[in-house]
Amino acid sequence: MIIVLKPQATETDANEILDKIASLGLKPLYMPGIERTVLGALGDERRLKQLHLDSYPMVDAIKPVLSPYKLVSRELQAHDSIVSIGGVKVGGGKFTVIAGPCSVEGQDQLFGVAEMIKEQGVPLLRGGAFKPRTSPYSFQGLGLEGLKLLKAAREQYQLPVVSEIIDPNDADLMYDYIDCYQIGARNMQNFRLLEAVGKQDKAVLLKRGMSATLEELLLAAEYIINAGNPNVILCERGIRTFETATRNTLDLNAVAYLKEKSHLPVFVDPSHGTGVKSLINPLSRAAVAVGADGIIVESHLNPKEALSDGHQALTADDFARLMADIKPFVAAAGKQL
Amino acid sequence: MIIVLKPQATETDANEILDKIASLGLKPLYMPGIERTVLGALGDERRLKQLHLDSYPMVDAIKPVLSPYKLVSRELQAHDSIVSIGGVKVGGGKFTVIAGPCSVEGQDQLFGVAEMIKEQGVPLLRGGAFKPRTSPYSFQGLGLEGLKLLKAAREQYQLPVVSEIIDPNDADLMYDYIDCYQIGARNMQNFRLLEAVGKQDKAVLLKRGMSATLEELLLAAEYIINAGNPNVILCERGIRTFETATRNTLDLNAVAYLKEKSHLPVFVDPSHGTGVKSLINPLSRAAVAVGADGIIVESHLNPKEALSDGHQALTADDFARLMADIKPFVAAAGKQL
Amino acid sequence: MIIVLKPQATETDANEILDKIASLGLKPLYMPGIERTVLGALGDERRLKQLHLDSYPMVDAIKPVLSPYKLVSRELQAHDSIVSIGGVKVGGGKFTVIAGPCSVEGQDQLFGVAEMIKEQGVPLLRGGAFKPRTSPYSFQGLGLEGLKLLKAAREQYQLPVVSEIIDPNDADLMYDYIDCYQIGARNMQNFRLLEAVGKQDKAVLLKRGMSATLEELLLAAEYIINAGNPNVILCERGIRTFETATRNTLDLNAVAYLKEKSHLPVFVDPSHGTGVKSLINPLSRAAVAVGADGIIVESHLNPKEALSDGHQALTADDFARLMADIKPFVAAAGKQL
Amino acid sequence: MIIVLKPQATETDANEILDKIASLGLKPLYMPGIERTVLGALGDERRLKQLHLDSYPMVDAIKPVLSPYKLVSRELQAHDSIVSIGGVKVGGGKFTVIAGPCSVEGQDQLFGVAEMIKEQGVPLLRGGAFKPRTSPYSFQGLGLEGLKLLKAAREQYQLPVVSEIIDPNDADLMYDYIDCYQIGARNMQNFRLLEAVGKQDKAVLLKRGMSATLEELLLAAEYIINAGNPNVILCERGIRTFETATRNTLDLNAVAYLKEKSHLPVFVDPSHGTGVKSLINPLSRAAVAVGADGIIVESHLNPKEALSDGHQALTADDFARLMADIKPFVAAAGKQL
Repeated sequence: MIIVLKPQATETDANEILDKIASLGLKPLYMPGIERTVLGALGDERRLKQLHLDSYPMVDAIKPVLSPYKLVSRELQAHDSIVSIGGVKVGGGKFTVIAGPCSVEGQDQLFGVAEMIKEQGVPLLRGGAFKPRTSPYSFQGLGLEGLKLLKAAREQYQLPVVSEIIDPNDADLMYDYIDCYQIGARNMQNFRLLEAVGKQDKAVLLKRGMSATLEELLLAAEYIINAGNPNVILCERGIRTFETATRNTLDLNAVAYLKEKSHLPVFVDPSHGTGVKSLINPLSRAAVAVGADGIIVESHLNPKEALSDGHQALTADDFARLMADIKPFVAAAGKQL
Repeated sequence: MIIVLKPQATETDANEILDKIASLGLKPLYMPGIERTVLGALGDERRLKQLHLDSYPMVDAIKPVLSPYKLVSRELQAHDSIVSIGGVKVGGGKFTVIAGPCSVEGQDQLFGVAEMIKEQGVPLLRGGAFKPRTSPYSFQGLGLEGLKLLKAAREQYQLPVVSEIIDPNDADLMYDYIDCYQIGARNMQNFRLLEAVGKQDKAVLLKRGMSATLEELLLAAEYIINAGNPNVILCERGIRTFETATRNTLDLNAVAYLKEKSHLPVFVDPSHGTGVKSLINPLSRAAVAVGADGIIVESHLNPKEALSDGHQALTADDFARLMADIKPFVAAAGKQL
Repeated sequence: MIIVLKPQATETDANEILDKIASLGLKPLYMPGIERTVLGALGDERRLKQLHLDSYPMVDAIKPVLSPYKLVSRELQAHDSIVSIGGVKVGGGKFTVIAGPCSVEGQDQLFGVAEMIKEQGVPLLRGGAFKPRTSPYSFQGLGLEGLKLLKAAREQYQLPVVSEIIDPNDADLMYDYIDCYQIGARNMQNFRLLEAVGKQDKAVLLKRGMSATLEELLLAAEYIINAGNPNVILCERGIRTFETATRNTLDLNAVAYLKEKSHLPVFVDPSHGTGVKSLINPLSRAAVAVGADGIIVESHLNPKEALSDGHQALTADDFARLMADIKPFVAAAGKQL
Repeated sequence: MIIVLKPQATETDANEILDKIASLGLKPLYMPGIERTVLGALGDERRLKQLHLDSYPMVDAIKPVLSPYKLVSRELQAHDSIVSIGGVKVGGGKFTVIAGPCSVEGQDQLFGVAEMIKEQGVPLLRGGAFKPRTSPYSFQGLGLEGLKLLKAAREQYQLPVVSEIIDPNDADLMYDYIDCYQIGARNMQNFRLLEAVGKQDKAVLLKRGMSATLEELLLAAEYIINAGNPNVILCERGIRTFETATRNTLDLNAVAYLKEKSHLPVFVDPSHGTGVKSLINPLSRAAVAVGADGIIVESHLNPKEALSDGHQALTADDFARLMADIKPFVAAAGKQL
């Protein structure tokens, strides 16, 4: 860790800090410059956090040398993690599509979509039973009734299920009905929720918050693994920027960066990432090409009747086109669908 | 609500939508143009949401005429709401300072700060017992032990207490220990948490999410009021932008805008809003001048020993300067401290 | 155009505006609602701008129905434009790589890179003679000397040349030395510069501003075409967001959106778009897959000696890997390199 | 300067860099750590830029210790600069209002506004003759005719004049007609323009770019001073964020930060900074309170007839209210209007 002192800092100020560093068993460094004095601390700088050096009045800036996350990092584990969702392996040489409706609305709706995606070769079903909605007046999901329908669809079509959790209390309840907990963007830093799924042994699909940095996303994953559950899948779903032509800005830099820094699988959500139906296909192709391990997309056989997010839901025809569209790019990436 | 059709939409497409609008008891409007056809629906457009018109393939854009919130709006209640925190009235002609440490760390630390702010005329104490932290390796708060200390400080110094809630389950537990629930920026759209405090009758200080629009903030407040609790205070605490010189960008436009649209009191958090100790005073003065009803600031008698956010905590001397600094501006605003 | 009035607007207020609309030969529409009155104007709404309706105190919001650009739009020309850079056709079924150093630094440096990219099959050379630099103390480019070297390289290696223009006065001077003017991100709304290249007949590569919306980018292109030069190529080069892990956030949503709305070729600059050398390859593949017509990348045979942007410059080996990397994706996209 | 090496860097890699540092006459520092090696360079690190260390493959990150600007900094000059605009002193203990129309549209319009603001005690007139407009179809300003009107107004009402320059060629032409060059947000990094006004001896009002960091703004000012003109006034005018309720997000953190780092006067533009007429007054008061040296606001006697930005122009009545509104806050700040 590098500590830059203010111009007016004295040698006494420097020594106070150097002594503290030494007291932790780290090696202190004194680097007086012409305009500024710089201090260093060699060793495991994570331990330095307890010194709270940023509270010292003579400290101008703290520049950490190491990243604050560890368990998710390639420095800890160089090879790719492969995560199982109800027996379906995600990551490695596979490109996996997860599809289904935004919300579970009823048996006919859910089973219709499940049958359609099954025919298209999709191995995993998504569907929301608990819906986080911006307005209290919007449809909030079917709750337990939705979970039961998801379980029934899983059995009927042999499709393991991904569904969103929004309350730490629901972790045990959901366990029997689903194969992968989804943490939505609004809850990426709901730390109680991260800990709750961290105590389960099923996979977790962790979506990036709308304005979360990649470091924060990796630290949120670190929470889950630190609580005991290593089965984490990261998911880029678009960030908030000044641009209004698309609902969000899908950040594919993030995918390449995350694949470089972390061993966890990385998915992309082009439905929320664009919010525009006609952009889902090109961005899905781009997700393949940039190195993502899969995509999660919204589909509905009759979007006009959808109770949420119908504008970005793919019909059966749209979906068939999507699968045909990405196929050559998956091959170009040397992966299997 | 205005519905813009795509250039290729036919009269049949338009009629399908117009019939749906009429079926809800709203008045449909047909406006064929040279390049585009535009449709309208007159009446309570909130009911139109159930039509999911944005899912129709021939619909290019939906332009709502009314805002989606109601209970928080000046259209419902023109005069300012005044909210009581343990008997201390907030809003109206008052400018209220809430102060205290980021985290409760122990009795000496908490009582020391409480005594100091009491002497400075501050009527309300803040302190975190449950801390949402970006890293799982950071101090997570004292929990129940912290709540007990807050209650003790309240009794000793006659300072009603504001403290953050991070889990819906804690709402009942916290009720006896605190006078105002704080919802942090990361939880602004944790809807279960909003509902949980919405079922209580104590005040709620609702912080704006780091990338939440003002409409989303107002809708989050709407959740709480809709669940039964009208005692909501809004709080601007800085948003995320490209600028890195300050930790966040304090959005004072937001304060003026919220005061115009909503009857709820609006606070400002200059500690998190800047993240730089030397900027807290000027931005606190600006908060007064822009029309805020109060500020919430972090203070610690010995920031070097603080377990969180020490770099932005005000010492006793800093705090005395802050109070002296804002005093003439509160007078200029025609308010009382 | 849709005009939403304030709640307190009277019928007289509405009539004043309706009369103005009628006076322009457009068809006025009166839509009184329960909470608000809405007005409409049917016809060429671009003419409505002269009414400045947003200045009327009783007008709450103006919602345009049409986009403000025309010449760049697919509504004017449905098929893809193909632009020639010194005889090399860009757009249509081609995927084109433009490569070269950030700055021209001397003959050995420039010719070395030119020879290398020529061997790799790259048809177009880039190189900066006039450099816009954030700091006045940074290298500002070789100026005319640089242009002469570019022209010499063009002749020696048969590589038409792209180079940045930063002053309207230089348009004529540069004309003899280069084949395509580049407008940098910082100058996207330097309207005098847009007009200056709009009066030339050579291609213009127009980079998106760091915080320019896609509508503003299209309007900047509209300036150039409106001034007489239809040979415009759009270029996404990363936008400014809160994320700091990468220098910019490459917005590939933008590419898909621009290809949908406009007939102009769209390029991607993965060097500036990421600012991280190891991310250039994955993002170049993604650019191919999302539908871009080409990429522009920085290359230097000895980045350690580069006078600008060496950290993101590809060496000969890096460059060979990039070309090999994108090849299967160009094939998957059904295009030719 | 601190140089962090990659984990796989060898001692040979480190030595190569240390030798380079020594060759510049700076003192090299070698700090081997457990996970990483860190190098340092003591002395004037601005000279290190010529080493381009960020291009070295074994360099992971460069962390500068000093800010890259000098002439604008309080480290060079601790006391406030006072800048004269046609004899009117700006900065120091004064709070100065600059007002006038967005565009000069004709003699009646300009003189009407000039007379009104003169009566209100405003010492400086603004008005655009050359207008940078997003769309090529919008009014582009009266040009030289506008300059002549400005000069006439200056003489008639004894109001020195601020007007925008958009082309380096116009610097000499404008010199006789105006007292202060304004550089607009879109041109903050138009370096030729910065140099052109840097060669003049009249004041320059430099607006912050829409997504410019404060460091970039200070470096743009450094360009002007470095070219020979020290009479620079900085101006915050709102930045681009995700928020759409206001046209821009006025960043008052910026004002406090700039006043701390730089000796230059800092102004605020609440008209563009909010884009909403009803927010101009509260944000003007906040600008006073945060420590700004003045504001620049748009005014028009008949906004309905304005050719640009009428929606944010203050009428005579609005303007009188603004002046009355800020008066007590200027007094609270201990300044004179």
